[in-house]
Amino acid sequence: MKKYIQPDKNTWSTLMERPQLEKNQLDNVIQNVFQEVKINGDQALMELTQKFDGADLNDLEVSMDEIERASEKISEELKAAIQLAKSNIEAFHKSQLIEEPKVETTKGVQCWRKSIPIEKVGLYIPGGSAPLFSTILMLGIPSKLAGCKEIILCTPPNNNGEINPAILYTAKEVGCTKIYKVGGAQAIAGMTLGTEIIPKVSKIFGPGNQYVTKAKEMAQQMGTAIDMPAGPSEVLVIADATCNPAFVAADLLSQAEHGADSQVILLSDKESILDQCMQQVEEQLKSLPRKEIAQKALENSRAIQLDTIANCIEFSNAYAPEHLILAMEEADAILDSIQNAGSVFIGNYSCESAGDYASGTNHTLPTNGFAKNYSGVSIDSFVKKVTFQKLSAEGIQNIGPAIEIMAEAEELFAHKNAVTLRLKNLENV
Amino acid sequence: MKKYIQPDKNTWSTLMERPQLEKNQLDNVIQNVFQEVKINGDQALMELTQKFDGADLNDLEVSMDEIERASEKISEELKAAIQLAKSNIEAFHKSQLIEEPKVETTKGVQCWRKSIPIEKVGLYIPGGSAPLFSTILMLGIPSKLAGCKEIILCTPPNNNGEINPAILYTAKEVGCTKIYKVGGAQAIAGMTLGTEIIPKVSKIFGPGNQYVTKAKEMAQQMGTAIDMPAGPSEVLVIADATCNPAFVAADLLSQAEHGADSQVILLSDKESILDQCMQQVEEQLKSLPRKEIAQKALENSRAIQLDTIANCIEFSNAYAPEHLILAMEEADAILDSIQNAGSVFIGNYSCESAGDYASGTNHTLPTNGFAKNYSGVSIDSFVKKVTFQKLSAEGIQNIGPAIEIMAEAEELFAHKNAVTLRLKNLENV
Repeated sequence: MKKYIQPDKNTWSTLMERPQLEKNQLDNVIQNVFQEVKINGDQALMELTQKFDGADLNDLEVSMDEIERASEKISEELKAAIQLAKSNIEAFHKSQLIEEPKVETTKGVQCWRKSIPIEKVGLYIPGGSAPLFSTILMLGIPSKLAGCKEIILCTPPNNNGEINPAILYTAKEVGCTKIYKVGGAQAIAGMTLGTEIIPKVSKIFGPGNQYVTKAKEMAQQMGTAIDMPAGPSEVLVIADATCNPAFVAADLLSQAEHGADSQVILLSDKESILDQCMQQVEEQLKSLPRKEIAQKALENSRAIQLDTIANCIEFSNAYAPEHLILAMEEADAILDSIQNAGSVFIGNYSCESAGDYASGTNHTLPTNGFAKNYSGVSIDSFVKKVTFQKLSAEGIQNIGPAIEIMAEAEELFAHKNAVTLRLKNLENV
Repeated sequence: MKKYIQPDKNTWSTLMERPQLEKNQLDNVIQNVFQEVKINGDQALMELTQKFDGADLNDLEVSMDEIERASEKISEELKAAIQLAKSNIEAFHKSQLIEEPKVETTKGVQCWRKSIPIEKVGLYIPGGSAPLFSTILMLGIPSKLAGCKEIILCTPPNNNGEINPAILYTAKEVGCTKIYKVGGAQAIAGMTLGTEIIPKVSKIFGPGNQYVTKAKEMAQQMGTAIDMPAGPSEVLVIADATCNPAFVAADLLSQAEHGADSQVILLSDKESILDQCMQQVEEQLKSLPRKEIAQKALENSRAIQLDTIANCIEFSNAYAPEHLILAMEEADAILDSIQNAGSVFIGNYSCESAGDYASGTNHTLPTNGFAKNYSGVSIDSFVKKVTFQKLSAEGIQNIGPAIEIMAEAEELFAHKNAVTLRLKNLENV
């Protein structure tokens, strides 16, 4: 973690640079996967699962029996923790289910908007040593609350053809309608194109490696919506003299352990705070199992002293971090100045891992500067908002003449005529 | 317009086929435009404007003087019509500015979400014989209400280097901060990359031809958000015996005149209604200035009798039309069964042109089946929703143990440690 003291403002953009992702030429690889799945359907999915995950499957779909047995395999302690998180995530996401008022824009002209669930959605959960069941909570709960009818989940099996029980338990608890043992680009292709077993969905959610990312891009080009553009995870911490350096260091490390391409940025108005936090980072790093990953991430990372907290916020707004931690006692006073961030953690007790698991907010957030123009996952991500309008005879009489004039000015005479006919008809009533 | 009587359900998907867009290989063309703009900036924009629009410009930016003079050039009648539309669009979009409640998910854990405007947005308005000022209302009004700081507008000049006064007047009225004389892919490249004159924006909105569409796709791949994927415009009308066939025909034609690739679908439970509407279409078509365009669009179009209105709705939900008109007296009863549509027009007086111009709803809507998974433009399109969480000491004590268990199960020990340190610290208080 490199330290910078009062860097000149024209160097800020360099300090905001994110680790460059290798732009691999995966287009052909992924196109081939889509092509195979298109032609050979489930057979292709089985074969690719054999190839990449080493699993010989009889069935892509997880059976009810497997799901039932999963529940027995995980501790009551973990179940209770998942239930607590679920309850908080539900409570927060429910608050986003807001019915909007009908508006009479002109007498006789009523307009309103209604949230209607996206019927079929697909969730993707990567494999690997640890089961990312928390992401199932973050994607499954809002999809269920939104009212999506089909909520399918794809995740790669281990080489025995099994899915981690924590994944199965959580998927069942949030209400996933089907679970499939398929991962990687082939899972995304399956959900995009549909096969005999896997339904074609309208929107795909979830994290993944570069193959999954590229496959989601391809899905988007084919008309299937995706949650948001991908990028490496990141945190920016603004710490003042009232922070607790050990807490700050722990938060930086919990971001750094995500992956070697993670980035952590620490800003403070005091150099001594940077020093204390960095010393704590060194200290805590020693005992971390994922020490090597965290260390690599710290190489991409910066500790920067700026002359005021206001400047730290300006820097943060320009960086647009996925996670923004305000490590200070009086954070409320500066909340209004925050312009760009995925999720904000206020004060010394609001650690990023609270939002990652259980505070109630969503952990699927815009990274890579996308917090400037994208929102994190929410109920909104699982609905489309349809507008309605109802004009009475009086309504069309009130706004019809204006429409006629505007349509004529745009040289759209059939548009005008649709109004003229109605107005004439009403004259004759 | 071809008629189908009670087509078998397994032929529906064929009847839902949209006109195939030519998939031109524009990638190289557009990449070159981006490259030129990247290297030569405004000089490239000037040259491309000379090349494609035949205009020799001294300045890309429209001057205050040009804007002032525009107002004098358009009729008071048109100004009044624009003002009425503006007032309705404002009233409806204001209703979307909803502050969400703070939620205490667990005692001591507060979560909330705040809409923060996207700072810089770019609106694109195509050129052509008619000035599409209505789209400026639809994009400019919500961007202003949302609170975007910079709202720039790009539109191609005519070969005298002028912009239509109705465009300039409307842009000023809605609060565009700058207007630039540049169109096509080069305008999109300018807003994506930024030049000395044109600011780099975070999100680009607006319609355009295949070059603009491809350039917006490229912008999206480069991290600039776009309003929604493009496609040809379309309407689906469900008419029962209580419709007015002349009104239905006028609505079908007002969609058909948009472009030769437009599609109109008419559904009814009565063949006689189809016949009456189609006869009216033939009749009204004769006197339309854009008759030839409409006629071409009608070749892509279908009139289909299904046995019940419920089946018509099922068909419509599967087609997911951009515009859905319910041409019947008792439309309210079926509103709840509508699943997929961009905007819905209820009853015999709610013509599509009302929503195109002045009812208050937005006319930038998902086409091409995207109404299944995308919403039309709204206030939401100009903000990102940022989540906040604030945990008190009690809050972290309440949910901390659950986080520790979950983080451990995901093998993320630094995540766990961020909580453990805080809990230990509180034990010692």
